[in-house]
Amino acid sequence: MSGSRVIHATDDGWADVDARSYKDGDGAFLDVVRHTLLGGRSAEPDLAFEFRYFEVAPGGYSSLERHAHAHAVMIVKGRGTVRLGDQVEPVQPLDVIYVAPHEVHRFEAHDTESLGFVCVVDRERDRPEVVDEGGAAP
Amino acid sequence: MSGSRVIHATDDGWADVDARSYKDGDGAFLDVVRHTLLGGRSAEPDLAFEFRYFEVAPGGYSSLERHAHAHAVMIVKGRGTVRLGDQVEPVQPLDVIYVAPHEVHRFEAHDTESLGFVCVVDRERDRPEVVDEGGAAP
Repeated sequence: MSGSRVIHATDDGWADVDARSYKDGDGAFLDVVRHTLLGGRSAEPDLAFEFRYFEVAPGGYSSLERHAHAHAVMIVKGRGTVRLGDQVEPVQPLDVIYVAPHEVHRFEAHDTESLGFVCVVDRERDRPEVVDEGGAAP
Repeated sequence: MSGSRVIHATDDGWADVDARSYKDGDGAFLDVVRHTLLGGRSAEPDLAFEFRYFEVAPGGYSSLERHAHAHAVMIVKGRGTVRLGDQVEPVQPLDVIYVAPHEVHRFEAHDTESLGFVCVVDRERDRPEVVDEGGAAP
C-alpha cells in the first residue's frame, strides 16, 4: 500500500476526511468548516506542507488574524472578499491569494453564497493570533 | 510592500504569472501548460512548497513519471483520469489526489474537456524520471 489515492469529493466534503466546524458567538469567526485534506499531523509525513480546504457559509467569515507563516490560497467555490492589511478585495473561483508573513487577513463569504478555498501552509508553523479591527491583539 | 496580494484569474491564466507550454511529439506528454502561481524559484521564499496550476488540453496528457517527492493535487476544472501505479481513475472538480513518493503517475484530460488542477510540491525536491508504460525508466 503506497498511500497514493483519489479522494473523491462528495456533496458535503470528502470521504474519510476530517472536517471541523466552527460557529462562534464572540464575533471572531462565523460559520467556517475546515477539511484537512492532506498532510495533517501524522498523515502524509513526506509533505513539507498541509493541504486544507475551508468553506465559509453565506454571510460568514474567518477570524481576523495574523501569524509568521504565509498562506497560499486558491478560491474554488462561490464568492466573497479577502482582507489583506487594510485592503478588502472581491474574490471568485480560480483567484489566487498570497498572504505574506504577519499580514492581518480575513476571508468573508458573500451574503448569499458560500466561499470555498484551498489553503496551503507549511507543516511547521506558528499559531495564529486573533486581532481586533485595528489590527492589534486584544 | 508586504507581498500580500490577490492574483486574479483571467480568461487564459493569471495576470503576471509565468506560464510554460509543453507540446511534445515524442509521446511523453501532450498539450500541458504549467502556471507557477506561488513559491517558484526566488519567489515567496517563506513558503516550504511550490503552488502550481496545470492545465491539460482535451485529449492531452502529462508524462508518465515518478519521483521521490509527493504531490498534493485538487482538480478545479474539467474532467479526465489519473493513473496511480496500475490504477486509472476518473476525476472531476474538487477531487483530491495524493501521489505518494515513487508512485508512477499520469494525468490525462477527457477527449472533449480540458483538465485543470492545482498541484503542490515541496520546494526542495528531486527531478521527475519519465518511465515507459510498464513503469521502467527507458
